[in-house]
Amino acid sequence: MFESAEIGRSIDKETFEAEAPALREALLEAQYELQQQGRFAVLILINGIEGAGKGETVKLLNEWMDARLIQVSTFDQQTDEELARPPAWRYWRQLPPKGRIGIFFGNWYSQMLQGRVHGRIKNAVLDQAIDTTLGLERMLCDEGTLIFKFWFHLSKQQMKARLKALQDDPLHSWRISPLDWQQSKTYDKFVRVGERVLRRTSRDYAPWYVVEGADEYYRSLTVGRILLDGLQAALKAKARPVPHPHAAPLTSSLDERGLIDSLDMTQALDKDSYNEQLVVEQARLSSLMRDKRMRRHSLIAVFEGNDAAGKGGAIRRVIGALDPRQYRIVPVAAPTEEERAQPYLWRFWRHIPPRGKFTVFDRSWYGRVLVERVEGFCSTGDWLRAYGEINDFEEQLSEAGVVLVKFWLSIDQQTQLERFKAREQIPFKRFKITEEDWRNREKWPLYRDAVGDMVDRTSTEIAPWTLVEANDKRFARIKVLRTINEALEAAFSKD
Amino acid sequence: MFESAEIGRSIDKETFEAEAPALREALLEAQYELQQQGRFAVLILINGIEGAGKGETVKLLNEWMDARLIQVSTFDQQTDEELARPPAWRYWRQLPPKGRIGIFFGNWYSQMLQGRVHGRIKNAVLDQAIDTTLGLERMLCDEGTLIFKFWFHLSKQQMKARLKALQDDPLHSWRISPLDWQQSKTYDKFVRVGERVLRRTSRDYAPWYVVEGADEYYRSLTVGRILLDGLQAALKAKARPVPHPHAAPLTSSLDERGLIDSLDMTQALDKDSYNEQLVVEQARLSSLMRDKRMRRHSLIAVFEGNDAAGKGGAIRRVIGALDPRQYRIVPVAAPTEEERAQPYLWRFWRHIPPRGKFTVFDRSWYGRVLVERVEGFCSTGDWLRAYGEINDFEEQLSEAGVVLVKFWLSIDQQTQLERFKAREQIPFKRFKITEEDWRNREKWPLYRDAVGDMVDRTSTEIAPWTLVEANDKRFARIKVLRTINEALEAAFSKD
Repeated sequence: MFESAEIGRSIDKETFEAEAPALREALLEAQYELQQQGRFAVLILINGIEGAGKGETVKLLNEWMDARLIQVSTFDQQTDEELARPPAWRYWRQLPPKGRIGIFFGNWYSQMLQGRVHGRIKNAVLDQAIDTTLGLERMLCDEGTLIFKFWFHLSKQQMKARLKALQDDPLHSWRISPLDWQQSKTYDKFVRVGERVLRRTSRDYAPWYVVEGADEYYRSLTVGRILLDGLQAALKAKARPVPHPHAAPLTSSLDERGLIDSLDMTQALDKDSYNEQLVVEQARLSSLMRDKRMRRHSLIAVFEGNDAAGKGGAIRRVIGALDPRQYRIVPVAAPTEEERAQPYLWRFWRHIPPRGKFTVFDRSWYGRVLVERVEGFCSTGDWLRAYGEINDFEEQLSEAGVVLVKFWLSIDQQTQLERFKAREQIPFKRFKITEEDWRNREKWPLYRDAVGDMVDRTSTEIAPWTLVEANDKRFARIKVLRTINEALEAAFSKD
Repeated sequence: MFESAEIGRSIDKETFEAEAPALREALLEAQYELQQQGRFAVLILINGIEGAGKGETVKLLNEWMDARLIQVSTFDQQTDEELARPPAWRYWRQLPPKGRIGIFFGNWYSQMLQGRVHGRIKNAVLDQAIDTTLGLERMLCDEGTLIFKFWFHLSKQQMKARLKALQDDPLHSWRISPLDWQQSKTYDKFVRVGERVLRRTSRDYAPWYVVEGADEYYRSLTVGRILLDGLQAALKAKARPVPHPHAAPLTSSLDERGLIDSLDMTQALDKDSYNEQLVVEQARLSSLMRDKRMRRHSLIAVFEGNDAAGKGGAIRRVIGALDPRQYRIVPVAAPTEEERAQPYLWRFWRHIPPRGKFTVFDRSWYGRVLVERVEGFCSTGDWLRAYGEINDFEEQLSEAGVVLVKFWLSIDQQTQLERFKAREQIPFKRFKITEEDWRNREKWPLYRDAVGDMVDRTSTEIAPWTLVEANDKRFARIKVLRTINEALEAAFSKD
């Protein structure tokens, strides 16, 4: 895999100096065009052998291009805010917005390579990390991000010579940290693991470019040209076609019945039982949130449901038991300008709670496969791929100890009609009922299909959906509270 | 000051239950109106005696109102990301956007009170903290934020009884932390310091409301009514009038000469001297940034100047010496939607570097008193008060160890004309010259006045302006680099 990057490639100074100015101008042009189009972001990943010119190349790119439109991110030690959340959170918060270039100098690959080389993880875990990475990169590409992955390579001899030269140069000797020397000893291991990683993660949508790093001129021109070609092609291309969009709805059934229709909507609780159980379940939740095992977990509750199904009331009963310092409610509305400049899931990642805390999403990332699907706010390709992206996302949450509960609050059409009419009569509730709500009612069958697909495709063992029969508000609220409590207890019992 | 909050005020349950529902409805109405207007944010500060119902009140407000539109923030232990920046950074990052309510449960007052009560700071430092706070609150109010400051009070006897009751109640005993009991011993001190703080920080635009906390019904109704009255008044009010706007430009001089005109624009450097000094100054900066004393500081460089004065080129020479991992460049353009929903300085606070790092602002917070003043993008009142707000801001940076250098790159009209024309000829620079640039040229005298005022009012000992004669690019770049180096050395020598 690295053979052709060990043959001593070089370019003479004259050739470099003849070509560099035009390359630089073209890169600048492409960069401004990128900004003006504002259609996609560029992400450059920098990895490879120590001493192979990674730092020099990043520096050069900042000199050649307009550094004001480039964000260089490093991922050394995790901050305590990062340690309290799933590992990918730190990458999400540094993603470049559309129109910009982000350079991840140190990234998910460095983490997994270091981990494996230093024996902190085994191949099985490495392969899991690779899978997660592939999912992430695939998703970024689907969101339009143009990814360049550079592996700067040196043969063992080249590396030794290079590190020696740096050490002997008084201007650069400060750059050799003990870690780098240690890596010189583990060169073989690093290359072996590197090959495994590159082989499994080079994809048509995000290929690796292996660049021989010994000669500065060769290295710089090579990287510059790869970037330029890739940028120009992407700037010229129209929106990427979805490979194989499925034209038919996923589960539209012949009998006009969906999963939702099979719920027993007559379930109800009388007032006394409700009051009794409410106190019990609220006290239970309050106590679970204060349990010291909660320090290893965080809690996320997702509320989706028909309009007027009682999401707000259910949320109020859930938080009613809690200290406001323990939770945050995120009402999901139209994305802001900064959110629109990022991949879809970015606006949810930014609200992931740290360990010990609880976030309630009043509507959620499922908007993509519900309202956006039904109303046509996104393309068919977008919502079709969302199922997989969401499952990946939730798996990451789960692996980081997040307890995730998801509720679909279901009411029937008659109940909804009654509640709409009632709301119009109550002054402080009139804000809650709009023209749009009435229009949505007409799309009832479309929503039924969307909900059915959503549950079929995203109800997983690690993050199951709970369908809540919500014609009776009391029944629904108790079911919600109890489900949360059981999920927390189950998580604690596994610790 | 607290006398009338120690007289045993109470309200009977019947009165409470008769009044609460209407109050709650009115609060909800006001809250939705606040969201719909999206004109200002509401900030509620919660302070006072332990056991006086602070937590209960925050909980109640979340129950009474729509908790989805309320953000409760606590400020316990600082995270390492917060510790690496000026103290106010953590408050800025939690400010509620327009249309929302933020509750700061624990805030700048808790910090200064705890500090003084436990003897970590003296009265002089307390008074400085008070001054800073007044500046911050004044600025928030000028930005439209509606601030409520609640002090929950108990007499010493009331407090003792209350803490005892809580301790004896099995449902609440977990809430009494050792710290609280300790505070019971220091009640006198807490009240004495509290009185000093309240006396000095109760202002017409952000008064304190002292609420007797012993009786739950009295406390709840009182807070609810104060909030409702304040909210309703603010929702009805039109934009606040500026108290005394100064109609005349500040320094428009009779002789048509400004500070800028007194610069010696003939200063220049020949190519050889330039190349020699560039290497020296870049190496010096590179070495200063790696100096271990840099761990106690961060560096901010602000670049302002005439169009085509060479800001970009100067910035490139500054960062040319540095590892891209050490710095970030923030190009300041039109604010995003999220930035517009916050006070003016918010969009700069979010880019304040942590210790050890360097942020370059390509244009800056001075836009308010330059382009926004000249083009009328903000009101006269807005830019007039900006001078003071900016000085306060920069003082906070300076006190946190930030080394701040500010450059105005000045060229004369003839030089600008030549550069504009030259730019139009170079393909990859054509992006840099727009219709607007040509229009701005016609406002030269207005900008001259604005720059003069800016320097007069914001060139301070802790953050002086450096006027850079930039007709000769080489001279300008060396002056910029040297100024940064001298500022860093001066800061290090004071450590």
